[in-house]
Amino acid sequence: MKYDFVTAVDRRNTNSIKWNVKTDDLPMWIADMDFKVCPEIIQAMQEKVALQAFGYEHPTSEYFDAVAQWYQQVHGSRPKMEWMIFATGVIPALSSILKRVTHIADNVLVQAPVYNMFYHSIENSGRHVLSSNLLYDGQEYSIDWEDLEKKLALPPTTAMILCNPHNPIGKVWTKTELEKLSSLCEKNHVVLVSDEIHGDLVRKGEDYTPAFSLEHKQQVISLVSPSKTFNVAALHAATVIVPNEHLRQTVNRGLNSDEVAEPNLLAIPASIAAYTKGKLWHDELIKQLNLNFDYATSFIQDKLPKLKVISETATYLMWIDISKLKTDSRTFIEFLHQETGLIVSAGEVYRGNGEDFIRVNLACPMKLVKDGMNRLAEGVEKFLNK
Amino acid sequence: MKYDFVTAVDRRNTNSIKWNVKTDDLPMWIADMDFKVCPEIIQAMQEKVALQAFGYEHPTSEYFDAVAQWYQQVHGSRPKMEWMIFATGVIPALSSILKRVTHIADNVLVQAPVYNMFYHSIENSGRHVLSSNLLYDGQEYSIDWEDLEKKLALPPTTAMILCNPHNPIGKVWTKTELEKLSSLCEKNHVVLVSDEIHGDLVRKGEDYTPAFSLEHKQQVISLVSPSKTFNVAALHAATVIVPNEHLRQTVNRGLNSDEVAEPNLLAIPASIAAYTKGKLWHDELIKQLNLNFDYATSFIQDKLPKLKVISETATYLMWIDISKLKTDSRTFIEFLHQETGLIVSAGEVYRGNGEDFIRVNLACPMKLVKDGMNRLAEGVEKFLNK
Ligand SMILES: Cc1ncc(COP(=O)(O)O)c(C=O)c1O
Ligand SMILES: Cc1ncc(COP(=O)(O)O)c(C=O)c1O
Repeated sequence: MKYDFVTAVDRRNTNSIKWNVKTDDLPMWIADMDFKVCPEIIQAMQEKVALQAFGYEHPTSEYFDAVAQWYQQVHGSRPKMEWMIFATGVIPALSSILKRVTHIADNVLVQAPVYNMFYHSIENSGRHVLSSNLLYDGQEYSIDWEDLEKKLALPPTTAMILCNPHNPIGKVWTKTELEKLSSLCEKNHVVLVSDEIHGDLVRKGEDYTPAFSLEHKQQVISLVSPSKTFNVAALHAATVIVPNEHLRQTVNRGLNSDEVAEPNLLAIPASIAAYTKGKLWHDELIKQLNLNFDYATSFIQDKLPKLKVISETATYLMWIDISKLKTDSRTFIEFLHQETGLIVSAGEVYRGNGEDFIRVNLACPMKLVKDGMNRLAEGVEKFLNK
Repeated sequence: MKYDFVTAVDRRNTNSIKWNVKTDDLPMWIADMDFKVCPEIIQAMQEKVALQAFGYEHPTSEYFDAVAQWYQQVHGSRPKMEWMIFATGVIPALSSILKRVTHIADNVLVQAPVYNMFYHSIENSGRHVLSSNLLYDGQEYSIDWEDLEKKLALPPTTAMILCNPHNPIGKVWTKTELEKLSSLCEKNHVVLVSDEIHGDLVRKGEDYTPAFSLEHKQQVISLVSPSKTFNVAALHAATVIVPNEHLRQTVNRGLNSDEVAEPNLLAIPASIAAYTKGKLWHDELIKQLNLNFDYATSFIQDKLPKLKVISETATYLMWIDISKLKTDSRTFIEFLHQETGLIVSAGEVYRGNGEDFIRVNLACPMKLVKDGMNRLAEGVEKFLNK
């Protein structure tokens, strides 16, 4: 490998939320990575800082061009230049969009278990969460189409948040599923907000399909960002892609009055560097993540028969069924933390059937993956012998 | 001087909004400075970038301590640690606060002419602007107390935005005025949001008084930031100071659900460097601004008898009465731009009696101040001979 995926950055005693833990703790929860950021991005940041002037900025056409080119090159479809709007993050954009395209007390449809911040975005602005829970057969998840159709057709349902690919279950929705979904949304006048922050993290198999590339795209908004892909959560940069002009103007007004449309001093140059110079780093990252997943999957299969890996091909987050431990995820993760120092996410925050699951962040050097697996094994054993 | 206030940073062809102008244009409008940022801040930024990991962050107690210490050292009063909340900017905080502490169709009181973004913040969220216009006697501005008291007492008036010190007129309100104002707000159950972004830019005479240091502070919110002082508008860092605990919790919830409470990767370390290592740079900046103001004031007095400098002791923005040109500010600034390339702000955007004024940004090396004054003289002469 050209880049370093072996050395973990020491983030103890920095402002990191993830690493604000006790000395012997191993945090594998919050979704940021422990790999060093791609040096081409660092260089672009250093050059910007060296400019020594940081007045008010606007996103440049070079920025939008870099985004468009990345989607063309990596995912095979290019958003038009005029479809794109800069935002300070995926969740800031999502919260602003929901406030603009739905009304108080409307239903916003989600598919539980799903990324917990969706619930906060919906509930903090006085909208209702309406979940069409994913079906789970003990092996994998699927969409409950009958239930979904019924709920999309309810008059108070005015928006749906799609997690594409899906965090925490790691599933890539097929193009066929997405065409069907977007056509249902169109038919029912439901705005489909597609959170594609994990879109570049499909580790193998079929790639994900950006919602802006679908046939029924008039009700569709794609939210993309270099944040997960390049480990730059605190860069605060995202792009909102809205093919329909009228919807785009509505969204644009919302983002601006909610003050989440202005780039900070690093957002533009660092994003451009990521999208135009980050491809090889990204390829190597995917290789490393596959090694990590292969190791952890085998480990769990071999040593932990009571646990079952359910994640499919996307994200660096492993979704593990712990139902055979006959407990709830909150109790188990607290025990795990106390006994072994390993910090993982309790599935219950994602709602749906999440309380039978834990989510483990594997975006770290192999050394930490191995340490994490050993702690997990130790924790499970102690838990069973309690 | 230890620091360089002579070299202007070349910001053409960067993302700068201010410098996105034609080759021969001289922009003296938008409120950012052309001086190089204090090297201690640059160093802190470079160190953070060198860390190579930019996951989710939270503001540290070291940050709040740096803010508190600056206010103690520079302005003689120290906000308590627990009073402070981080925000991504003064206007993002203001917009969020108005949405949280007032209702749709409420009146928000302002004192025109005043910073134009206040109007957008109020109107974009469906609140009404109610102005108690400042009185102007041809020499200076003052508060119309009778009018103000009446308007504060109206039941739909639930918040007031104070510009402290006042942009664009450059006035520092006295402690006596502020005590009276805050006591009136308290009596009328009006939340007093005090925008103190220009607080560190009092060039001479009595210092400004932070609202959090007033006796009647239970209804008061101070908004502060290193943004103007240290020329880091695109750093996106500000602090919301709320002495009253209940009000603080309300505001905190708003900032978080509006997604303007999370620091980007540079916000914390650069602000700490500014507040703990920036005092000498700040002292020298004030010296340079005084030289600039003295030069421009004499120039206008000597050469442009139809113009009158009205700004008092605060901000780097000069407020100039052009009523003797017998035109409106929009017509004049467009003529000025076309004929001389000088770009200044039209006073009318600040409402009140603003259409008789222009606002000129003097935060640049003396060479540019001189260039700007020559262009202004040329423009006025051409305008009069038209
Ligand atoms: C599905 C999903 N969306 C959004 C985010 C966060 O996005 P941002 O930090 O840009 O608000 C995450 C982070 O874990 C995520 O998993
Ligand atoms: C009075 C006042 N408040 C706020 C701002 C902008 O603050 P921010 O960039 O932190 O939103 C300005 C900028 O000119 C200003 O003059």
